[in-house]
Amino acid sequence: MAPPQASEPIHEFGLIRALRRQFSHRDAEVIRGIGDDAAVISASPKQWWHVTTDLLVEGVHFNLGTASPEAVGYRAAMANLSDLAAMGATPRYLLTSIAIPRRCSAAHVDQLYGGLMKACRPHRVSLIGGDTSASRGGLFLSLTLIGTTRRRQALLRSGARIGDALYVTGTLGDSLAGLQILTRQSSTRVAKPHQRFLIHRHLRPTARVSEGQWLNRARRASAAIDLSDGLSGDVRHLCEESRVGADIELDAIPISPSCRAYAKSSRQDPTQLALSGGEDYELLFTVSAQHQPAVEHQAKKAGYRITRIGVIRPRRSGLRIQSQAGEWRPLPLTSYEHFCS
Amino acid sequence: MAPPQASEPIHEFGLIRALRRQFSHRDAEVIRGIGDDAAVISASPKQWWHVTTDLLVEGVHFNLGTASPEAVGYRAAMANLSDLAAMGATPRYLLTSIAIPRRCSAAHVDQLYGGLMKACRPHRVSLIGGDTSASRGGLFLSLTLIGTTRRRQALLRSGARIGDALYVTGTLGDSLAGLQILTRQSSTRVAKPHQRFLIHRHLRPTARVSEGQWLNRARRASAAIDLSDGLSGDVRHLCEESRVGADIELDAIPISPSCRAYAKSSRQDPTQLALSGGEDYELLFTVSAQHQPAVEHQAKKAGYRITRIGVIRPRRSGLRIQSQAGEWRPLPLTSYEHFCS
Repeated sequence: MAPPQASEPIHEFGLIRALRRQFSHRDAEVIRGIGDDAAVISASPKQWWHVTTDLLVEGVHFNLGTASPEAVGYRAAMANLSDLAAMGATPRYLLTSIAIPRRCSAAHVDQLYGGLMKACRPHRVSLIGGDTSASRGGLFLSLTLIGTTRRRQALLRSGARIGDALYVTGTLGDSLAGLQILTRQSSTRVAKPHQRFLIHRHLRPTARVSEGQWLNRARRASAAIDLSDGLSGDVRHLCEESRVGADIELDAIPISPSCRAYAKSSRQDPTQLALSGGEDYELLFTVSAQHQPAVEHQAKKAGYRITRIGVIRPRRSGLRIQSQAGEWRPLPLTSYEHFCS
Repeated sequence: MAPPQASEPIHEFGLIRALRRQFSHRDAEVIRGIGDDAAVISASPKQWWHVTTDLLVEGVHFNLGTASPEAVGYRAAMANLSDLAAMGATPRYLLTSIAIPRRCSAAHVDQLYGGLMKACRPHRVSLIGGDTSASRGGLFLSLTLIGTTRRRQALLRSGARIGDALYVTGTLGDSLAGLQILTRQSSTRVAKPHQRFLIHRHLRPTARVSEGQWLNRARRASAAIDLSDGLSGDVRHLCEESRVGADIELDAIPISPSCRAYAKSSRQDPTQLALSGGEDYELLFTVSAQHQPAVEHQAKKAGYRITRIGVIRPRRSGLRIQSQAGEWRPLPLTSYEHFCS
């Protein structure tokens, strides 16, 4: 048969929707299939299992010219840990699929695994299997991470209700700013400490595993998702799964001093970095009015930085954002393109 | 950091051993980690979970010039189903990671998934998740398949004991013969029906899921592995994990009439095709002397083709093969190179 020819492009979200329609599960033990941060399986009378897969491709998600194999491994593991964080799960077991181009040495593969395990070790994740192959193209890395929660106790994307407040952990936009500094160093004159902070946030993100477990244990959050595609894209995914709309206050979005300084020096709008910047791996979650005081109090006590950035609205009002001038406008559709860190 | 440069090659088996040493699990619920056909986790008081990952890379494991996207998807699923068959597990949940080059259309991706689901549907496997990305190189496909068995009831590579008989299901070498016909059609003059049979065995292999479950349920096999790297390589893996040696009778290896006819017409030794040919996805298993009559009787009743090909020996006697002339010689080390079907 003739090899495939160039034609219409493939869009991930469209593909996921099509697959869900075609091969929707009929297994009573599948609690969540395709579409959430991780699949959820009822594995025992006491436990739910959460399974997530992330794929990182050289030249698409990373570039070995600007990121070491160790950093690539570390960030790949963090992307998966972040998916489980968004479910409130405890990460347990890792499987790795790696296709290695001829130009990579055994030392580079060691470094890649070193990065993976550096990210996983604090969570006591066990590497239980995988597959390795040569690659005729670039480096490909696919990870499967399995985590657990108690039965019927997990954060899902679908639980947001009208009137719930929208919160995020940490600060947004740092990772994209760090990536921009790494790839276009000449165009910014922001101070070195800011640069170091932002590059570190890009190359060494922290999945909010402990925050996710706290929100899940206390049963305080009604829904959650991790910010891997950018706030603008991920709030859309959460609202779609919950069948609701949302209002976001632009002024409320938490932005680090370093990100503000970098945005100013590079003549960008810092909120734009926060809205469209992916791979921050912070959590976006919703809390009912009743639980907000307790959540804010507990977060302060535990040293978790959380910020209220908006509110869940009926689906018909759509996704809106309030500008600095107080005007409401539709949330722009700016999904983050993972590319070449 | 500078991108990796060419240097020492990566060998999969060396890599797996090194990883096992470095990141050996300490999780009490991990029954088997890296090294068996699938990882085994004690998921509940009643169940073990079996998790396997297989990676297929364009230009290494397949070539879209000779195999359709549908055949690639089908064979990828079979490789994973075969890993679970070797554990005696029931396949349940599938996750797919796919990196798609620009030249592939949405129709090709549909066909790929069509092949995956065609292989999985008879086993009622649910597609529960995955990840999709663009690829700057070729097509890259990594599957993770999860299966279940009862607790403490699974076929492992490590259970073979001295004196156990070695058996295989089906016939060996057909897949390699089919691959050779597909890639060098001009050099054989074997009859068309033989060619069709061998090509079908290559493009449409059958994982021995039901045979594996039977052997496991009846607790008749002491160890098992699937034949993905070729008999010569896989008997080595089984014996290594069981810390034993083995004697194989060359004359006993089951070879199909089509494979014999093809070998004759292409001036090859058919047993060589059987020893070195990978991707037959038959099962190699061991049975104690006590259970052999029952296993042979039940197999006949159920219509399973099984053939006794040798016996397990002490480790010190190594791996030997008896030639047609009756002489014992060391088993040649000819591992199958997965390439370009």
